[in-house]
This record gives sequence, structure tokens and C-alpha cells, in this order.
Amino acid sequence: MAHLINSDVFLAFSTYTTIVILKMMLMSPLTGYFRITRKAFQNWEDTWMAKKDPEERKKMLQTNPDVERVRRCHQNDLENIIPFVVIGLLYALTGPDLSMALLHFRVFVGSRFIHTVAYVMPLPQPSRALSWIVGMITTFSMAYRVFTTALNL
Amino acid sequence: MAHLINSDVFLAFSTYTTIVILKMMLMSPLTGYFRITRKAFQNWEDTWMAKKDPEERKKMLQTNPDVERVRRCHQNDLENIIPFVVIGLLYALTGPDLSMALLHFRVFVGSRFIHTVAYVMPLPQPSRALSWIVGMITTFSMAYRVFTTALNL
Amino acid sequence: MAHLINSDVFLAFSTYTTIVILKMMLMSPLTGYFRITRKAFQNWEDTWMAKKDPEERKKMLQTNPDVERVRRCHQNDLENIIPFVVIGLLYALTGPDLSMALLHFRVFVGSRFIHTVAYVMPLPQPSRALSWIVGMITTFSMAYRVFTTALNL
Repeated sequence: MAHLINSDVFLAFSTYTTIVILKMMLMSPLTGYFRITRKAFQNWEDTWMAKKDPEERKKMLQTNPDVERVRRCHQNDLENIIPFVVIGLLYALTGPDLSMALLHFRVFVGSRFIHTVAYVMPLPQPSRALSWIVGMITTFSMAYRVFTTALNL
Repeated sequence: MAHLINSDVFLAFSTYTTIVILKMMLMSPLTGYFRITRKAFQNWEDTWMAKKDPEERKKMLQTNPDVERVRRCHQNDLENIIPFVVIGLLYALTGPDLSMALLHFRVFVGSRFIHTVAYVMPLPQPSRALSWIVGMITTFSMAYRVFTTALNL
Repeated sequence: MAHLINSDVFLAFSTYTTIVILKMMLMSPLTGYFRITRKAFQNWEDTWMAKKDPEERKKMLQTNPDVERVRRCHQNDLENIIPFVVIGLLYALTGPDLSMALLHFRVFVGSRFIHTVAYVMPLPQPSRALSWIVGMITTFSMAYRVFTTALNL
């Protein structure tokens, strides 16, 4: 374990994974912020802040395009960042060069930050599509190394 | 690896992670239970149990508020428990005190059980909001230790 | 770490995890394919390919049953494959027999490929339900071994 923690590649993996997971987690408060400012909730009990009359609370049970946009961005994070973490962990254990590993981790994490900005702003396409594809290719590239190093069907 | 498995912190991580992942997995059968009792399905082929006439089957393709509630709870689990597992694994490898690690794991797992009960019952707010925030803070606290131990950009 | 990588069980885990995570990732391009061929998008900026008149672009902001089907399949993957990866990693570290480990990994990965085909085609029920249940049981079986080996509350 001491060995694991002293490996520079594993340290880099830990750092970039923590950054990108924290970015993903921050989509939850962001959704909450849009829900409160747009007054758009999904659960009756969430409208307790507007304690007054039931009519007003009922109106707050609505979907809002800004809220749905942030939620789609969060969902895309789940669909892309979790595969990166899993494949990245196995990749880090294959003993790659530190410079190659850093390149993969930095490109992926950068692409996800750009993706989030492009989705939430939103920026015109194909900025979001390109940032998504760059992240996919980075993960595929790490998966290729895992396969060529560890294939054991 | 023998070392990994003998580390008390890693054993505790394994135990609490398995508990909370099993809790998350049980949301799937719970969704199925609500779908069957509320007769609310999303796929035409899922209404095969009501073999009789197509009219009756068509009516079963509906959304139901109880089913949607359980699905939102499941989604919230994905958004919070997976970051806990990833950050918690890296945290366990930073060599924290066993008592501090147990405190983090127990508070997080407890907060998610309360969150599920508060969401599915449902309990009045802010019980669900508080249980969600406690889980977030626990994960942020572990991420802080990973950063201060392993930062390598 | 050299030890980790030389362990046959861990190599098998790496291989099957990479396969099933790649299968999950391919649901994203499949969703994109259905979105483009069915002309069904969720974001205004995604309709930029139909550059012409705003009327035509507005019509493309629709939900389509084929797209929603692929998205539900992707969501089911997230709900089942991620627990497999987490529990499977802990299971691999408990030092199981290689033959037992391979049985678990092969049955799970096979069940998820059948699940995807059964969902996207779609095949008549209960083919999808059975493939889902087989995957769940495989993960529960690995969790049982993690508990009996590593329980430390």
C-alpha cells in the first residue's frame, strides 16, 4: 500500500479523479440553485419554503428548461466520468509512463470542464460534442492499454 | 495485496461500501414492486403479465408518482454513493486513523439510509435535505484529506 | 502493485470490467445515432445541423420512443454495472479461486450483453427480466463473499 501511494502515476490518478468527481458532485447544488431560483420542484414536500397557500405550492411542481439542462449535464457526467475513474484506475495499475498518464488525465479532466461550461451556458455546437468526444477517446485510449497489458479472458 | 486486505481501514471501507452499494441496488426491485402494484410501466413488452387485450396493456404504459419518487431516490443514490466509493477508496489508501475513517464511513452510510426513508415515505422536509447535505460534507471531508496527502497536479 | 497486476484474479477482473464498461460507454453513441436518425433532440443548440428555418429546428425538439428505450437501457447499465465493478474489485481482493472468479465475471458480463440486446431489439419478456436478475444474483454472490471475508463494522 505504501508502494501504491508512492507511485507517481497513482498519485496523479488520485488527484485528477478527486478533482473531476468533485466537479460532478457540484452539479447537485447547481441543480438545487436552479430549482430554487426557477421555483421548479418535483416533490410536494420540497415546496415547504413557500409555506403559504397550497395553490402557490402546486404551481411550483413544474419542470423548467434550465433545471432540466443542468440535470442532463449531470447525467452525462455520470455516464462519462465513472467509466474514466474505473478504466483510469486499471490503467494506473498497468504501470504507464508518468508523462503519458498525466496527458490522459489532464486532457480528460479538461474536456469535462469545457463540456460542463458548454452545456450549462450553453455554448453553440459543436463545442459540447467535441469536448464529449475528446473525453471518450481519452478513456478508450486508456482501455486499449489495459487490454494490451492485462488481457486474460 | 495481503497487506491491503489486512489493513483495518481497508476492511472497514470494504464493509461499509458493500452495505451502501447493496442498499442502492435494492432500489431496483423496489421500483419493480411499485411498477407492478401501481400498474405503471414504460415498455410495451413489460405489460405481458396482463396478457388479455391490448387496450388493458396500453393503459399500463403510464407514469405513476410513487414509481417516479423511487426512481428519483435511486438517481440521487447514484449521484452521491458512487462519489463516496471513489473518494472513500482513495481516502482509505492515504492511511487515516481507523477511528476517523470509521466515523466518516458510518456517518455517510447512516445518512444515506435516512435519506432513502425520508424520500420514499416521504418525511417532511428538511429531513431529506439534511441527510443529503451530511453525506455530501462527509465525502468533501474525505476529498480534503486526499488532496492534502496526494496532491500531484 | 506488481503483485496486484500479477494476480490472475485481478487480471481477469480488469479484463471483464473493461469489456463491460466499454459496452456501457457505447450506449452514448447509440443514443446519438437514434437521436440523429429519429430527429429527436433535447437541446436547441443540438439542432444546428438543420441550419435552415427555426420552425424545422423546433420540430426536432421532441421525445422519441426508440431514443428513450436506449436511454433506459443505458440507465439500467449505470444502475447494475457500477455496483458490479465496485463489489467485483473488493471480491477480487478477497483472494477467491480463479475458476470461481471467472465464473462470476463471465456470467455477469454475458448477462449484460443479453440484457442490452433484449432491451434495444426488443425481445419479448421475460428475456430482459431474466438477464437482469442473473446479473443481480452474480453481484449479490460476490457481495456475500466480501461480507464473510472482510466484515468489520
